[in-house]
Amino acid sequence: MSLRDVAALVFDVFGTLVDWRGGIAREAQPFLARHGAGRVDPAGFADLWRGLYSSSMEPVRRGTRPYTRLDVLHRESLEAILPSVGIDPAQVPAADLDALTLAWHRLDPWSDVVPALLRLKRRCIIAPLSNGNIRLMIDLAKRSDLPWDAILGAETVRTYKPAPEAYLGTAEILMLPPSEICLVAAHNSDLAAARQCGFKTCFVPRLTEHGPNQVTDLAPVEAWDAVVPDLGALADLLEC
Amino acid sequence: MSLRDVAALVFDVFGTLVDWRGGIAREAQPFLARHGAGRVDPAGFADLWRGLYSSSMEPVRRGTRPYTRLDVLHRESLEAILPSVGIDPAQVPAADLDALTLAWHRLDPWSDVVPALLRLKRRCIIAPLSNGNIRLMIDLAKRSDLPWDAILGAETVRTYKPAPEAYLGTAEILMLPPSEICLVAAHNSDLAAARQCGFKTCFVPRLTEHGPNQVTDLAPVEAWDAVVPDLGALADLLEC
Repeated sequence: MSLRDVAALVFDVFGTLVDWRGGIAREAQPFLARHGAGRVDPAGFADLWRGLYSSSMEPVRRGTRPYTRLDVLHRESLEAILPSVGIDPAQVPAADLDALTLAWHRLDPWSDVVPALLRLKRRCIIAPLSNGNIRLMIDLAKRSDLPWDAILGAETVRTYKPAPEAYLGTAEILMLPPSEICLVAAHNSDLAAARQCGFKTCFVPRLTEHGPNQVTDLAPVEAWDAVVPDLGALADLLEC
Repeated sequence: MSLRDVAALVFDVFGTLVDWRGGIAREAQPFLARHGAGRVDPAGFADLWRGLYSSSMEPVRRGTRPYTRLDVLHRESLEAILPSVGIDPAQVPAADLDALTLAWHRLDPWSDVVPALLRLKRRCIIAPLSNGNIRLMIDLAKRSDLPWDAILGAETVRTYKPAPEAYLGTAEILMLPPSEICLVAAHNSDLAAARQCGFKTCFVPRLTEHGPNQVTDLAPVEAWDAVVPDLGALADLLEC
């Protein structure tokens, strides 16, 4: 079965669809200035925060922590990194920490995303398969008119990618065999985990996700079912 | 806090938004004819099938059966009612039973629904809070362009209304206090359960949900936060 026969396209979101680094830097800048760290590079601060992303989910993946939504993990990671930029989190009002944590709900999509999703939606079920929680995904979608058919991902399956249950549970909810679902992602590791579960795979490079000096995920490392320069090219490929 | 301050509107679906009786009758008619029951009234057959709806979910609500999606319950109920119309389910190909079960994914909305949802979506998060499973809700939405922000309901919270966890779990996913969410429904019992959980409530009568001789839910039985003749009137009330 070819990629043209898939019934659902599911998308990684952070990095693949939205620019987390730019969005977090934009909101971190005034926060850092307010708390005496105005000289800290806000994009570097975004990198620090994102640096704890995968390890923060690991206890949930391993089953040693019950499912805990990403907003809570983001808040914990924020408190963990603040001392490294000279801020004592105990001295910051909780409301300020909460507000900055919700910056992850206010990220902007790359420019190709919305027009391509509108085309792809005509042909397939489209949904995020992200580690972000449902409300976070709703807020991103309402901010930028991402035309999802459903919000799938970590909070519906109660675990985090790349645990196999995240992919297989999503296929079960969609009532589709994994071979009729394609994961679209900018990250080879996500695609590898999806392929292990039988999903089709589409790589879309995002060469500046990590800024101008990015060294990871610049090219496909396996022969994915599709490799496209942007989501418009995927819509072309699927003739929609 | 008034209804105008709600951040999310969640909707009952079967009967409130879509005409299950007409849709099931439409698809049952050729099925009944094919299986030697062409004289059975297809609308009456839809009533029979729907008649097992609530009791089929009761073991899940009570916790004596693990969460089982509505499609599976619908299939079981279909097999249970067929003998009463003179059909032996063991003589019907499984593919035929499966196809008719999926008729619940192909129901049409009442005429006020789509235009009003488009208006309401501008102001609030809008989502189904239905006992239907996610794929069923996706199929209804794609069929008729229901512009949901997310698919919430039984499969995300792993239980069935009117269990309190169905409402409270939805509020938790939305990261909102129940008082900032309004349930819109044509059924007084659903609204009563939601109100018990602190939700705002809006009653929209659907006087022909059960056909021309309907005797239930013709009028509000409590002083709901809003009572509207159709969803357009709710959009007027919320000034969106």
